[in-house]
Amino acid sequence: MSHPTSSRTDENWRETPFDDDKLKEECGIFGVIGTTDAANFAALGLHALQHRGQEAGGIVTYSPEANFQSVRRFGYVRDNFTSATVMEKLPGSLAIGHVRYSTAGSKGQTAIRDVQPFFGEFSMGGAAIAHNGNITNADALRKELVERGSIFQSSSDSECIIHLMARSMGRNIPDRMEEALRKVEGAFSVVAMTRTKLIGVRDPLGVRPLVLGRVGDGYALASETCALDIIGAEFLREIEPGEMVVITAEKGVESHHPFRPAKSRFCIFEHVYFSRPDSILGGRSVYETREAIGRELAKEAPVDADLVCPVPDSGTPAAIGYSLESGIPYAMGIIRNQYMGRTFIEPTEQIRNMGVRLKLNVNRALIRGKRVILVDDSVVRGTTSRKIKEMILDAGAAEVHFRIASPPTAWPCFYGVDTPQREKLLAATMSEDEMREHLGVDSLKFISLDGLYRAVGEAKGRDPSSPQYCDACFSGEYPVEPSDQIDKGFELKTAAE
Amino acid sequence: MSHPTSSRTDENWRETPFDDDKLKEECGIFGVIGTTDAANFAALGLHALQHRGQEAGGIVTYSPEANFQSVRRFGYVRDNFTSATVMEKLPGSLAIGHVRYSTAGSKGQTAIRDVQPFFGEFSMGGAAIAHNGNITNADALRKELVERGSIFQSSSDSECIIHLMARSMGRNIPDRMEEALRKVEGAFSVVAMTRTKLIGVRDPLGVRPLVLGRVGDGYALASETCALDIIGAEFLREIEPGEMVVITAEKGVESHHPFRPAKSRFCIFEHVYFSRPDSILGGRSVYETREAIGRELAKEAPVDADLVCPVPDSGTPAAIGYSLESGIPYAMGIIRNQYMGRTFIEPTEQIRNMGVRLKLNVNRALIRGKRVILVDDSVVRGTTSRKIKEMILDAGAAEVHFRIASPPTAWPCFYGVDTPQREKLLAATMSEDEMREHLGVDSLKFISLDGLYRAVGEAKGRDPSSPQYCDACFSGEYPVEPSDQIDKGFELKTAAE
Amino acid sequence: MSHPTSSRTDENWRETPFDDDKLKEECGIFGVIGTTDAANFAALGLHALQHRGQEAGGIVTYSPEANFQSVRRFGYVRDNFTSATVMEKLPGSLAIGHVRYSTAGSKGQTAIRDVQPFFGEFSMGGAAIAHNGNITNADALRKELVERGSIFQSSSDSECIIHLMARSMGRNIPDRMEEALRKVEGAFSVVAMTRTKLIGVRDPLGVRPLVLGRVGDGYALASETCALDIIGAEFLREIEPGEMVVITAEKGVESHHPFRPAKSRFCIFEHVYFSRPDSILGGRSVYETREAIGRELAKEAPVDADLVCPVPDSGTPAAIGYSLESGIPYAMGIIRNQYMGRTFIEPTEQIRNMGVRLKLNVNRALIRGKRVILVDDSVVRGTTSRKIKEMILDAGAAEVHFRIASPPTAWPCFYGVDTPQREKLLAATMSEDEMREHLGVDSLKFISLDGLYRAVGEAKGRDPSSPQYCDACFSGEYPVEPSDQIDKGFELKTAAE
Amino acid sequence: MSHPTSSRTDENWRETPFDDDKLKEECGIFGVIGTTDAANFAALGLHALQHRGQEAGGIVTYSPEANFQSVRRFGYVRDNFTSATVMEKLPGSLAIGHVRYSTAGSKGQTAIRDVQPFFGEFSMGGAAIAHNGNITNADALRKELVERGSIFQSSSDSECIIHLMARSMGRNIPDRMEEALRKVEGAFSVVAMTRTKLIGVRDPLGVRPLVLGRVGDGYALASETCALDIIGAEFLREIEPGEMVVITAEKGVESHHPFRPAKSRFCIFEHVYFSRPDSILGGRSVYETREAIGRELAKEAPVDADLVCPVPDSGTPAAIGYSLESGIPYAMGIIRNQYMGRTFIEPTEQIRNMGVRLKLNVNRALIRGKRVILVDDSVVRGTTSRKIKEMILDAGAAEVHFRIASPPTAWPCFYGVDTPQREKLLAATMSEDEMREHLGVDSLKFISLDGLYRAVGEAKGRDPSSPQYCDACFSGEYPVEPSDQIDKGFELKTAAE
Repeated sequence: MSHPTSSRTDENWRETPFDDDKLKEECGIFGVIGTTDAANFAALGLHALQHRGQEAGGIVTYSPEANFQSVRRFGYVRDNFTSATVMEKLPGSLAIGHVRYSTAGSKGQTAIRDVQPFFGEFSMGGAAIAHNGNITNADALRKELVERGSIFQSSSDSECIIHLMARSMGRNIPDRMEEALRKVEGAFSVVAMTRTKLIGVRDPLGVRPLVLGRVGDGYALASETCALDIIGAEFLREIEPGEMVVITAEKGVESHHPFRPAKSRFCIFEHVYFSRPDSILGGRSVYETREAIGRELAKEAPVDADLVCPVPDSGTPAAIGYSLESGIPYAMGIIRNQYMGRTFIEPTEQIRNMGVRLKLNVNRALIRGKRVILVDDSVVRGTTSRKIKEMILDAGAAEVHFRIASPPTAWPCFYGVDTPQREKLLAATMSEDEMREHLGVDSLKFISLDGLYRAVGEAKGRDPSSPQYCDACFSGEYPVEPSDQIDKGFELKTAAE
Repeated sequence: MSHPTSSRTDENWRETPFDDDKLKEECGIFGVIGTTDAANFAALGLHALQHRGQEAGGIVTYSPEANFQSVRRFGYVRDNFTSATVMEKLPGSLAIGHVRYSTAGSKGQTAIRDVQPFFGEFSMGGAAIAHNGNITNADALRKELVERGSIFQSSSDSECIIHLMARSMGRNIPDRMEEALRKVEGAFSVVAMTRTKLIGVRDPLGVRPLVLGRVGDGYALASETCALDIIGAEFLREIEPGEMVVITAEKGVESHHPFRPAKSRFCIFEHVYFSRPDSILGGRSVYETREAIGRELAKEAPVDADLVCPVPDSGTPAAIGYSLESGIPYAMGIIRNQYMGRTFIEPTEQIRNMGVRLKLNVNRALIRGKRVILVDDSVVRGTTSRKIKEMILDAGAAEVHFRIASPPTAWPCFYGVDTPQREKLLAATMSEDEMREHLGVDSLKFISLDGLYRAVGEAKGRDPSSPQYCDACFSGEYPVEPSDQIDKGFELKTAAE
Repeated sequence: MSHPTSSRTDENWRETPFDDDKLKEECGIFGVIGTTDAANFAALGLHALQHRGQEAGGIVTYSPEANFQSVRRFGYVRDNFTSATVMEKLPGSLAIGHVRYSTAGSKGQTAIRDVQPFFGEFSMGGAAIAHNGNITNADALRKELVERGSIFQSSSDSECIIHLMARSMGRNIPDRMEEALRKVEGAFSVVAMTRTKLIGVRDPLGVRPLVLGRVGDGYALASETCALDIIGAEFLREIEPGEMVVITAEKGVESHHPFRPAKSRFCIFEHVYFSRPDSILGGRSVYETREAIGRELAKEAPVDADLVCPVPDSGTPAAIGYSLESGIPYAMGIIRNQYMGRTFIEPTEQIRNMGVRLKLNVNRALIRGKRVILVDDSVVRGTTSRKIKEMILDAGAAEVHFRIASPPTAWPCFYGVDTPQREKLLAATMSEDEMREHLGVDSLKFISLDGLYRAVGEAKGRDPSSPQYCDACFSGEYPVEPSDQIDKGFELKTAAE
Repeated sequence: MSHPTSSRTDENWRETPFDDDKLKEECGIFGVIGTTDAANFAALGLHALQHRGQEAGGIVTYSPEANFQSVRRFGYVRDNFTSATVMEKLPGSLAIGHVRYSTAGSKGQTAIRDVQPFFGEFSMGGAAIAHNGNITNADALRKELVERGSIFQSSSDSECIIHLMARSMGRNIPDRMEEALRKVEGAFSVVAMTRTKLIGVRDPLGVRPLVLGRVGDGYALASETCALDIIGAEFLREIEPGEMVVITAEKGVESHHPFRPAKSRFCIFEHVYFSRPDSILGGRSVYETREAIGRELAKEAPVDADLVCPVPDSGTPAAIGYSLESGIPYAMGIIRNQYMGRTFIEPTEQIRNMGVRLKLNVNRALIRGKRVILVDDSVVRGTTSRKIKEMILDAGAAEVHFRIASPPTAWPCFYGVDTPQREKLLAATMSEDEMREHLGVDSLKFISLDGLYRAVGEAKGRDPSSPQYCDACFSGEYPVEPSDQIDKGFELKTAAE
């Protein structure tokens, strides 16, 4: 049984997302077993992962007395999962949770029933799952399942997993999950729970992150290490690509490798933008990696100027790196209004037109007459970059030089990131020179793909025959064929491109 | 995919139903095809059927532009489905709707996902259904469906129908619905819709009502005729027991009889209490039937007194009949507070203890020193009757005589009515005399079962070998075996009883 | 300090009142001293008085620990003042409360700051007051007060009283209240409280009601006796016209008569419509008075017919009286939908046009072919009467005879009742014959003014030289000159009329 | 008329402020005249001033058609004053607005009636005012006003101004405001409006800021220049200490000097923390001043270390200055969670105990083994500083050196800033050495008072005989006697201190 598009508007939302022209990670996931008040840990962990999804969040718990319980809400974790009234509905020592990004406006509207974790009651008991990533053959799977009598409740690709599990003849839930995930293509990190087990899985390429930590006598799984820090958990290790861990109170962590082995292709954009700077990836803080990207960029694309200013906040570590390498003083030439939210409900025309001015203001007295290097993490559609350039020139800057801490973003991501259609990506339709002219700046330089690989620790740069990372958004080389998209008409890169 | 018990409390409800000790009809249903703004008609129809269910309501519409749309809400129709903002989300010329009774408190809490209409997307398109009644083999069906991989979303018995339809190999939705309903046991009136059809079905015994009306060039289906009146529709006829009508814009009403023929057993309590007095049942207004019950009662159980007073509002027509037959003046000895609602959110101790005094007050100056006949429609647990008697005596009445417009309610209903467990029914554990003593009144008389049958138009009374109505709540004779209940330990009436 | 018209819309209300074309009492008041949890009693009392005002309510309490506390809310008492969370904010053994009628739409919108009780901090301590009635020189008083530096917070006439008290040089609050009320003209019943006293006052003519009761060791004041019943208080007596009672825990009830003596002119419409039928006025239940009005009407205006039907619910007692006197059977020919509320938020066009059909439905099967006497309490603008007549004829009635339990309402009330402007009153512009034609009924009769006086107990009818009641709405004879209205252009009745 | 403590809890708030141990500016003010949709400009200006007050905001407008209109709300400007539904209630070309800081928890709770702008209706018309600062003789004024019959509505000191205006015999509103403000002692910047005038005033010492800008053909007044930037207004000049400007559409800006001349004593803490870094004060961006403070601090208190890290976000500019001066690399050693709000509603125990960990996380991989200089703007109670030190050490830092960009905060502010009682200020009870020990850091240094004066542009440092700024929070020298506080027992600095 399910429901038609009784959407979020049904709850009187008519929100307009504030557009800051960034790629958006679509999810953060978290799970914990073996602690009292597991839901509190889940809430804290999800709060630390809020940058991975701000639209909605959910937590499912299990306790013998209360059975499975679930609370799912639109809005921030801090507004929904801190009150005693809500949290007392989520008892138990086992919990998983999920935060998701708003796709409102771009892809239609989300209903509360699209908010994870998802839950299914099977003949041997219930299970809940939370998924970060994207299933690239979800449309085909859904069609097949509906023909056989499954009734979908959400519009989410992730729901396929739970229906595949329902139809599996596996004797227990981990077996059913293995069987289901073997039918699934794409990128996924999953945390799941039964009445006694916490389960974590990464797809064979390990596109999306998932880490394991120890908290007291229990364990936690999280998208990033910053979610372990907040609950005082010790970071043990990353879950390996293609690994499934099944964690119980009795036996601790058991590791399985249900998938055919494959070479790892971790998402390089996690280093550039998605992950939080205080998270640890590959043994180093993401902050340090970004500072290194800035240093590399200063070497590749130097320019004479008075100030290095970040586009706040995502350009900050690279700007610091650029300043340290170039010796040009670092300064906050653009100030962010920290009371700016993510969306508006039914905004006036004037608010709609304000755009980035609501969030950023130029430090006029500082910038006037200066030659300014602006460091940003990426250029997507270029809309914000243009407005920032205008604000800077309007404040009287003598020169504006853009330096971008990633290569041109020319291809959409189909692995769990919200990207515009290809034709909306500035780099898909313009050369670097055309982009410079379009943005109207004195110079524009992107870091090279090899430079980026060096900065993330690959001393020899990218291995073109077998790239060490998923860099499809830059290179157009998709490690998993996006079959649903191809069915809808998406054209892969040709040999000529 | 479904969700665990994220219940209504998730939406911050903690309500205590105001107990007025009545049996509760669990649902009202409505459907309309071939009119502009069908949802507006549905809202009006459901408003007229609000007495059949006050907890929640929902409407589903279809239009080629907007596809299926759904709004489901807790609370009254008038508060949820009158605003332009909500109704503009429900475009189209085809709509069905549902109101349901609150079982909060008695059976646990309802979640919004338990609110109908239910919707399923099948390979040939979507369908929505709304169900009034109860499926007596729902537990068994559900177990079987889960074993085969169906994932239930609600705790409602009605959801079985949609899963049975999903698994059917029927080529179109009416065929699938026929197949599904043939597997279902119990009492049901159903309205359903596809993109082009409005469908209405009654179970073979016709336990719950369903009527057909004509509105402009279109048609409407409703639980009662009062819902046709409000939209200005002409009452055509009742849907027959075991009939399925399929209504389209092109072909009008097509009638099918998919079930094995059976003798009609309409719920006699619809005449006594459930239906609205201005609805037409069996060619006569329910008001007239109730007045006739009062006249019959006056003949069966006369008593010398000064005033005939109804227990408002359900006892009113019978009290008028009693007065007309007996010649004893009719008077409003008990005044109802019309601002009294159905539930409280987190009431104070004092409010909880007030009970019926919040709703009723005795007309002290009128009652003092008088011999009063109180006419009520039924006695369920007797809690309210006791309090009313105390209030009347406290106001100085000389004598109190209870006259009840139905036989003793000694058995629970399993066909879509909310009844207490058998041991809570006063008449299940006490003789009439014990009840009189328990209530502390000067006399207590119930109408006889034969008298009731006469009043509803069966001149010869009840045919014990083949009763004309379902009267299980009085007689303990269940026309459909309540198999789920028997599995849970319910004991049918023995030969000795 | 005050605020401009930050109105109720500020709180996102856009409501359209459901118009049932009645005069509206504007307030109910209640006070209690000497009981634990006085606020709970106040809430119950106000719930019983809800018919006197449904828009909003407020309660003020005093306890030595918590000082004065106040909660004021839009909506019904039962929705706002039953929850433990709210009531625990209102501790103490002394409380007063107020309910008010919605004037939304007709007079502009109400803000929460217009909701009583009002509170003022004076040099000798705080006081709260709640007022039922209308101050006929409020505009003049307000102008004077503003010129001297008083800042008004509300648009309410009642606020003058608290500013007059603030400026008084009286040594204690009862003295200040006496001084203030001597400057005030019009109709008023007031309950007030200080830290230790409960105070009740009626204007010299006693236009609006106020009664005194004993509850446990304490006392209660209320607009009507039905509010004493609900808390189990004993009705002691009415406060006399021109009397001020000051009640303390130590000394009990002290009676003062601060005003110049005058002959009582109680509002006769309280008998006809405003008061609840179970309240006691002049030693008799209001229900009995209304039944007597019906009997008087049957004598004055008999007609041959098949059924006497009330326009529910206000016409019911008079219809019963008419039936008893005439011998024509009483029947419920029109059924009220009890789930109909008072207002809509942003209704669709269709809902707006439905009007009375949302609330009333004709009992078609009963009415068809019958000659029907419809008894209503009054005709104001006649809009509802016309629609009811149409519904009745549409259902196939053979004849429709209107009988009205009050004389023609031809003049507005300026003493605390919401009446349309004079030109909107049907009886102000038409003769009885024209009205009959306008309404399109077979006959239309109003009770005579003398008949009404007889029914309320004045055996000799109205004393034209010195009427025993205020009947300005019928007679145009205003016992207190409506000076603010005259300043705005209202024309008193001329000798010629 | 006013109301007792019907507080914010009345609206079901039970919030716990998130404590980040900072002094809090209590208000930001804004006004605009001569533009269409003035309220939209006010909303944008207040959004830019949100850092000066996050609890609540209000806007008052005037238009000939709609008269004065007001909307006041708890919460952020962006959540309350961006929607078309709200803004269409605020028409006109003249508007003023106010944002206020939450004092919830520290001083009791705020009610909506404490939210400015305040409005008063005088005999010559209405006026609204918004006030930033604090009236040091408000208690005495209030007592006097109440004795004369004024009724206070709020608990705000600012309300005195409007009552003094109401009682003034001045012929027009600017005259009345002059008269009122001459009776008021303390620090105040005020914007006010009548139907035709926008008025701005600063107290004779000019403690709080107020600037004038030109926008199209109109004018704007704002607490800071960043509020002019967002609406595209040109910054003209600061309003002078003791100046009153009256701005009309016809005559433009008229300047008055109603007060006795005095030497300016602008709040030096505006430079340190309150003002936004992109605002211009004294001809220089606040960011540059703070960078200069950091440089000065590096000169006064050098230390050998590996990294200079700010305590985000307020320590950032000074940390950059310290790094630039010292040559020690700047790095983000502490990462702020940008989804952290200001308060919680009814938090769980665990959330309450998390404190700063919810907002800040140490960049563990970066900090490990490093000698770290932490730069913060101030130390108030020291609670947050201790927790940050613990987090840093816990992450494995080798050494922690605190450098503070202001002198020890040893005295409360009585001029519109929320400060703890003196005994809660760490510097009021401990020497610098005791504080270092209390915080448990390797070294702790504050900038000297002279160093701070040099950094803000006073080359010779502080003039002890006649200080150029108000620095009472550091020096205990109060330029205006805090008379209400002295009445309550506050002890001024003795000669010995």
